[in-house]
Amino acid sequence: MSRFGVAVLASGTGTNLQAILDQLHGQEEGVAVVGVASDKPGAEALERARGAQVPAATFPASEHPDREARDAAMADWLEGAGADLIVLAGYMQLLSPEFVGRFRNRIINVHPALLPSFAGIDAVGQAIEHGVRVTGVTVHFVDEGVDSGPIILQRAVPVRPGRDRDELEDAIHRTEHALLPEAVRMIAAGRVSVDSANGRVVTIRQQRT
Amino acid sequence: MSRFGVAVLASGTGTNLQAILDQLHGQEEGVAVVGVASDKPGAEALERARGAQVPAATFPASEHPDREARDAAMADWLEGAGADLIVLAGYMQLLSPEFVGRFRNRIINVHPALLPSFAGIDAVGQAIEHGVRVTGVTVHFVDEGVDSGPIILQRAVPVRPGRDRDELEDAIHRTEHALLPEAVRMIAAGRVSVDSANGRVVTIRQQRT
Repeated sequence: MSRFGVAVLASGTGTNLQAILDQLHGQEEGVAVVGVASDKPGAEALERARGAQVPAATFPASEHPDREARDAAMADWLEGAGADLIVLAGYMQLLSPEFVGRFRNRIINVHPALLPSFAGIDAVGQAIEHGVRVTGVTVHFVDEGVDSGPIILQRAVPVRPGRDRDELEDAIHRTEHALLPEAVRMIAAGRVSVDSANGRVVTIRQQRT
Repeated sequence: MSRFGVAVLASGTGTNLQAILDQLHGQEEGVAVVGVASDKPGAEALERARGAQVPAATFPASEHPDREARDAAMADWLEGAGADLIVLAGYMQLLSPEFVGRFRNRIINVHPALLPSFAGIDAVGQAIEHGVRVTGVTVHFVDEGVDSGPIILQRAVPVRPGRDRDELEDAIHRTEHALLPEAVRMIAAGRVSVDSANGRVVTIRQQRT
């Protein structure tokens, strides 16, 4: 099987990057993490990349004239690294429309809610404030909107009666660490496509046995 | 245990009414369905009420000068029937603010989606069109908005890869027929309250053992 190159963008601790490194990188599925990019020079995700001998680079806003220029430089670097798929794993910057268009349906994001509920920042806090009993995790393709692209996978997470934020965040993170690698594995296997008739609908083919 | 009177409003076939009759009416929890009201004279729900010897009445819009008058007449009838709780079970009319205010936090609705996603009509169709992988059922208190009141219970229902509408509707109906009686049972047992500090948050006390 030929190598499927995955690049990861992260702004923070990079636990979702670690889940991909642990569960997919260099395993039999042929997935290789080929690069990690961050907007934050001190992001712990960069350390995790170095720990796994994966090329890492930073693209701080301060070093580029504007977002378009920053994203263009990052896109060039990601293509050079051999990225077939770009995974946003706690990447806190909105990507430019040019970047999104250049990698159409090749960028995915993991969001800590069952979209379309609770898009945007602090989805866990939004869910607790709204009083829902069920929230969850969504992996979706990235389009020009905020958490609005076609949905690939979702998994529900119950909100316990005490509504403890730390407990709920832990449960959601555990779910992310399972669901995001699962989505990458399915995409790498060529099982995922966006319906040409309805661009919101993602088709997942059964696994060959 | 004293009797807890439940009135049901229904516009259609009344399968959720039937679930309440089958699972709660006259059982040991002390819940009695004391009345069934409909805006539709031909609603099958009315037949189900008669079949269970439950008083039934119709309040068609055509027989009242306006919605406020219709809802006031219906409210009088429901109070006279001894309703402690009013359950909307496929009731397709928006209730007047006066009606909602008169029975504040004593009206509940079952909605075929995980609110706040897919409020309003055809929630199942909305979910399929949006391409979600998880939808579900919500039981919530009714306020002046559309499917916007405090959430009591939610349960997730997966959307199968084929996105077959009939199959998904069946799964959602089965979930409704379990979740709605469960919510009524908890309310009748005095276990459910709306948080006075945050009116969106519903507290459910543990069951006494």
